[in-house]
Amino acid sequence: MLIVQKYGGTSVGNTERIKAVAARVVKSAEEGNRVVVVVSAMSGETDKLINLANQISSNPSEREMDLLLSSGERITSALTAMAIEELGHKAMAFTGRQMGIITDNIHTRAKIEKISCERAIKALSDNYILVIAGFQGITETDDVTTLGRGGSDLSAVAIASALDADLCEIYTDVDGVYTTDPNIVPDARKLEKISFEEMIELASLGAKVLQTRSVEFAMKYEVPVVVRSSFNYNQGTLVTKEDKDMEQVVVSGVAYDKNQTKITLTGVPDRPGIAATIFKRIADAGIVVDMIVQNVSSDGKEADISFTAPKTDSKKGFKLTGEIAKELGAKGVAIRDDISKISIVGVGMRTHSGVAARMFEVLAKHGINIIMISTSEIKVSCIIDLKYTELAVRVLHEAFDLAAK
Amino acid sequence: MLIVQKYGGTSVGNTERIKAVAARVVKSAEEGNRVVVVVSAMSGETDKLINLANQISSNPSEREMDLLLSSGERITSALTAMAIEELGHKAMAFTGRQMGIITDNIHTRAKIEKISCERAIKALSDNYILVIAGFQGITETDDVTTLGRGGSDLSAVAIASALDADLCEIYTDVDGVYTTDPNIVPDARKLEKISFEEMIELASLGAKVLQTRSVEFAMKYEVPVVVRSSFNYNQGTLVTKEDKDMEQVVVSGVAYDKNQTKITLTGVPDRPGIAATIFKRIADAGIVVDMIVQNVSSDGKEADISFTAPKTDSKKGFKLTGEIAKELGAKGVAIRDDISKISIVGVGMRTHSGVAARMFEVLAKHGINIIMISTSEIKVSCIIDLKYTELAVRVLHEAFDLAAK
Repeated sequence: MLIVQKYGGTSVGNTERIKAVAARVVKSAEEGNRVVVVVSAMSGETDKLINLANQISSNPSEREMDLLLSSGERITSALTAMAIEELGHKAMAFTGRQMGIITDNIHTRAKIEKISCERAIKALSDNYILVIAGFQGITETDDVTTLGRGGSDLSAVAIASALDADLCEIYTDVDGVYTTDPNIVPDARKLEKISFEEMIELASLGAKVLQTRSVEFAMKYEVPVVVRSSFNYNQGTLVTKEDKDMEQVVVSGVAYDKNQTKITLTGVPDRPGIAATIFKRIADAGIVVDMIVQNVSSDGKEADISFTAPKTDSKKGFKLTGEIAKELGAKGVAIRDDISKISIVGVGMRTHSGVAARMFEVLAKHGINIIMISTSEIKVSCIIDLKYTELAVRVLHEAFDLAAK
Repeated sequence: MLIVQKYGGTSVGNTERIKAVAARVVKSAEEGNRVVVVVSAMSGETDKLINLANQISSNPSEREMDLLLSSGERITSALTAMAIEELGHKAMAFTGRQMGIITDNIHTRAKIEKISCERAIKALSDNYILVIAGFQGITETDDVTTLGRGGSDLSAVAIASALDADLCEIYTDVDGVYTTDPNIVPDARKLEKISFEEMIELASLGAKVLQTRSVEFAMKYEVPVVVRSSFNYNQGTLVTKEDKDMEQVVVSGVAYDKNQTKITLTGVPDRPGIAATIFKRIADAGIVVDMIVQNVSSDGKEADISFTAPKTDSKKGFKLTGEIAKELGAKGVAIRDDISKISIVGVGMRTHSGVAARMFEVLAKHGINIIMISTSEIKVSCIIDLKYTELAVRVLHEAFDLAAK
């Protein structure tokens, strides 16, 4: 098999860990696999570099920021290649450029446009284990770019796809994907497998195991991904195409996200196009809106419009919404930061009815008020009081029978 | 003027220092100059990376070592460009590759083969201040190389030459080139200017201000170099082509080198080609021999052959010389580590006679025995007892009237 193995920051956190990773890689190679390794920066390294930049500028140039941050992964790739060679195997470290990862020129959050992997293929056929610096690429005009936080996952999946690898293993410090956060529910169960769609919902909902874009990429190019721990040899979670088995499971997991703020415009004169006006302005300001709810008053003349956004945008969002309210002649603006989003996810919802109703019923039974609701084909999300987050996770996990047996 | 300014590790040792460097660069630009900056790794950074590699392997791959070490300068270049932008000037960080520095593929001590500076020229004409990561280049086959310790000096001089710059300023933590080490002779005088030839002799003799290869390069391409401090605005030392003024000065400086070991083969049967045999073997072992002295016995049948080499090679050199002695039927091998080399340097020696004799006389007068002697057109070096090093420097500095008036 050709396997791409990605090791995150804690997995390569110091030289002892890097040696352990090398041993793991060599074990895979000695079992007869060809191995391509993708590494993150050693844990803490990226933050250290960001801190240096912040000491110099509150608003550093993004082009220079990318050059700065790309160093972290380069260091790990060189050290990991050395560690593999120390174990008697041929290894070669590759930068993003040497791997042929070409991106657009949107610095700090570049998109991969293509991967020219001729050199990698040649090196693999010469029996080298390749160690690629994750998180980075290069523009057509030869500038270094980075792929955004968690971008090494994306590097790994994209490289697996480009090399037509049989498997992409994402090594992290947890054993796999759980039915919910084990810190809240101790008997949360590790999933043996999960569909790409469910994983995307879980990732974007705050289960930080895998970066969302990387799962979307894996789904698009059908790259089977395994999430597992680099600290033990436990079986991980396979993220793969949806299959018949999965549909039998109504709810696969319960996710929560405490990084939420809710902003409400009250008494907005209800005319056509008003929502478009509001959300165009908010989007232009770079605020990513999640849920939107609109209630029209009984006389049909006014509406209350609420939306949620990341808590980090709450000040900016509140100020901007205030300006918009004034212009539109709305009555007022209200903000709530003490909320969280609870979601249940499962492809089985497509074929099972009454799942949302059951969720509302469970929350109600425990006195948890629902502030907003949003649903999709495979998930139901509710905004609730922040203080009920853990309680809601626990009771939903129990109600949908997700615990380890 | 187009000025290349190179800042060493202590000059960019932390973010405060980087800001100070940026202010200096901007001052130069605001005086009407176009400025290209070359930076080293922040002080301690390269050693930190070497230490990480050594924790992983006692003999790390040189290709991976270069990738590892090149990170240090990339980090500084990005941070310095940010600091310049923070002061309201356009700046762009360039890696060795982006600067177009093409080297051979001898990793860890690569030679620059050419510099393709089209992109740099374009950026300069667009009014960018360029900040180049020193010490590094790239091979024709796209692998990262480094230029050896002190390689950033070489980067700066080579870039100055390629861009046809008017001046190359080397910023360090000393004010310039002195007549001798001010730690030994407090009234040592800073030289206003010095010839390339003299600087090469002083650099290779242990005055660590400028890397020897960079001075050789500057001489070859006639790049005027100024050595000065980044910690103050004192005038530095101009390193330039020899001129009439310089010839008036018989001795420009006194250098010393404590990193010396002397190995002697005694009773070597004196046949033609024997020295060639010995020194070919020593060179093949990678030991760089400095002085060689051969004395033939009065009957002409045997010779004693002594040579000096860096102290770091003393064990290896002694062992190897022992083997050679056995093969050649020499009587024995002796080694002395407690020696140093004292040199006087000056282009005026070419036109003034009696300089060497004066040196020997001064040393003799102070009871300092001369163990070996070596002379060139512009220098005289003597090997003496290590314990007399400082005394010899002081008395020679005084005898040749080098002190500040």
